[in-house]
Amino acid sequence: MADRPLKELDWKTPLEAARKPSLNQIAKTGICGIMDPISPGLPPGSDTATLALLGYDALKVYSGRGAFEAVGSGVDVLPGDVAFRCNFATVDNNLVILDRRAGRISNEDASKLAESLQKIKLKKSSNAVFFFKNTIQHRAVLVIRGAKLSTAVSDSDPEKVGEKISEIKPLDESPEARVTGEILKELMQKFHQVLKQHPVNKERVRRGLPRANIILCRGAGTIPKIKSLSQIYDTNAACIGAAPLIRGVCKAAGMKLIDVKGATGTPQTDFMAKAKATVQALKTNDFVLLHVKATDVASHDGNIKQKIELIEKIDSMLGYVLNNINLNETYLAVTADHTTSSVTRNHEGDPVPIAITGPYVRRDDIEEYDERECAKGGLNRIRGMDLMPTLMNLIGETKEFGA
Amino acid sequence: MADRPLKELDWKTPLEAARKPSLNQIAKTGICGIMDPISPGLPPGSDTATLALLGYDALKVYSGRGAFEAVGSGVDVLPGDVAFRCNFATVDNNLVILDRRAGRISNEDASKLAESLQKIKLKKSSNAVFFFKNTIQHRAVLVIRGAKLSTAVSDSDPEKVGEKISEIKPLDESPEARVTGEILKELMQKFHQVLKQHPVNKERVRRGLPRANIILCRGAGTIPKIKSLSQIYDTNAACIGAAPLIRGVCKAAGMKLIDVKGATGTPQTDFMAKAKATVQALKTNDFVLLHVKATDVASHDGNIKQKIELIEKIDSMLGYVLNNINLNETYLAVTADHTTSSVTRNHEGDPVPIAITGPYVRRDDIEEYDERECAKGGLNRIRGMDLMPTLMNLIGETKEFGA
Repeated sequence: MADRPLKELDWKTPLEAARKPSLNQIAKTGICGIMDPISPGLPPGSDTATLALLGYDALKVYSGRGAFEAVGSGVDVLPGDVAFRCNFATVDNNLVILDRRAGRISNEDASKLAESLQKIKLKKSSNAVFFFKNTIQHRAVLVIRGAKLSTAVSDSDPEKVGEKISEIKPLDESPEARVTGEILKELMQKFHQVLKQHPVNKERVRRGLPRANIILCRGAGTIPKIKSLSQIYDTNAACIGAAPLIRGVCKAAGMKLIDVKGATGTPQTDFMAKAKATVQALKTNDFVLLHVKATDVASHDGNIKQKIELIEKIDSMLGYVLNNINLNETYLAVTADHTTSSVTRNHEGDPVPIAITGPYVRRDDIEEYDERECAKGGLNRIRGMDLMPTLMNLIGETKEFGA
Repeated sequence: MADRPLKELDWKTPLEAARKPSLNQIAKTGICGIMDPISPGLPPGSDTATLALLGYDALKVYSGRGAFEAVGSGVDVLPGDVAFRCNFATVDNNLVILDRRAGRISNEDASKLAESLQKIKLKKSSNAVFFFKNTIQHRAVLVIRGAKLSTAVSDSDPEKVGEKISEIKPLDESPEARVTGEILKELMQKFHQVLKQHPVNKERVRRGLPRANIILCRGAGTIPKIKSLSQIYDTNAACIGAAPLIRGVCKAAGMKLIDVKGATGTPQTDFMAKAKATVQALKTNDFVLLHVKATDVASHDGNIKQKIELIEKIDSMLGYVLNNINLNETYLAVTADHTTSSVTRNHEGDPVPIAITGPYVRRDDIEEYDERECAKGGLNRIRGMDLMPTLMNLIGETKEFGA
């Protein structure tokens, strides 16, 4: 949601340019500020930022994206498993990448391909099993389970179109890294063989679509060793969000994942369904995280007009929430997990706006919810990992330190 | 540059009282804030503050002033070397200090004395060599190089006139501290013997000047183990500054030191020469640190009028920079490395103003660059070590943490 000032908007940010009566109402009735998800200037990933917003010290506990993505997609990840984020992609005969997203392949096509890939057998000697699952469009996850594995293996994904896929290598001298590298290499080669001649790809060529003829993998990770939110704050917490990565972080934090029909993690998500599910979830949960991915997608596409429209949809969604919860006994905090620049199309290190409304907050005189008005608010500038203690303290779930 | 409000200025700070159109232009077109060089209330040295402004955690990596001073004076300091700051001083026959600066001895006299001191031989058994070099007036540096040395040795400089020079002692039980202490003691005694009967001192007595008959040493230090800026951010960085200590910190950070004719590290420095060198350096460097020592010197002297004049000279210098760089593709940040009070004449723990201008910054409504206006700005309050990530993020040289 957060951005930098844009020339196209007469040097306003999309949030400043959007019509957003509900966001403004939250700012007006609450206390505002700016927040560095991790620390000033550091561009966070969605995973590290969400860890921080849930109160964890991401710099200490982060253990790679792969496991979060897998867990959030409904693939079990056990301690010891190594998980990867994957893309269906298009390469030419020399393994040079033509499209890192295989034309943003449909869920339907990806599902059929994934089903075939899951049938592949690893050599018996590798003594391991794997789980491959497509998630949204070109995205997929891979989990390898074996006796002694390591996350110290390099990516096959060079993350750049026009480059050859990278050779998978162990990143340290351990036998675990060597074994994991060999298994991953075997899988990637077998995946490529199956995809090259798959009927779905022949059909895609007929329809003029790029073939999904390779799997790119990156971000080897394990499940981080963290206490659950209920252990830390004695609260039950739930997550309403469709993006697998966010769901994975929430799952790792011991939160309940609530499925919402129509919630897709895309700009086409059903905002109102999420609003209704949130109001419902607040009846039985102490803490509900409502996450919307859409604005980030628009920013990565540099689509300013869409970003504004999506902010306005988020605003309507929050309007429903505001009208259906009792703000005399409920706190509502609105923020972003990071700034994404519509110009660089990357996550950036600028702080995000934050507003908290509810009983007894030290209401300030900020009347608009945006990056620059909130910067003048009563919270001043805090860090992402400060948010959860602040909220948990407001609902009376923090313990005194000392006596 | 930063100060506290002064009665003599009708409770304005020197920065508030000065005419400073260029500084104000930077504030007006940029985002402003205040910054604690290390942490609130902690008065930093110029070395620790500069380390922090370059993005290092000074509380963790600082390893004494000696090595920075030596490196900044053009004396090589290798890992393992122990470096000291030294003074030419005057003692009586009982080794009681009469003048800690030997009458602010001239560079000429100090050079002749230093040349003789460098010829001294250490006992073979000490298995070490040393480098002694005078820098500005009474100041000098000493570097000891040997197999196993330690910084755990006490100073010979009691830093007080009328006291006897201090006995050098190892500060822990290690053999390294014992050996270093013995070498230092041997050197100090041999230095004293040579200086006592040196022709330069006989000539000084004839001219009615205090003899420079002893070397006082303090601040044992090593080169800190830090990554260079180019390793951290993949940028090439240069320093334009004359003060040896600042140059030493920049050298330790892997920065190129640019020599500027007329830049002296004093109030008489050639501001315009530094401005021109900065504009030139920006053509081939990603990051240029332009450092001016002069306002700090005026503050230590309690010379408020001179401090204001020097701020106005800095303003003209920045006017040249502003007029000769392209602010559509260059970022300019202006700050101080610490507050120096014209009343206490010491470095103080108050935060310093900071303004950053350049493309896509979240410009705020601050119009004047000073301690109290900047405190209302969009950056709020950051720490010194947050500045470099913030700037490097703006120029696109930070890596995303997470995914």
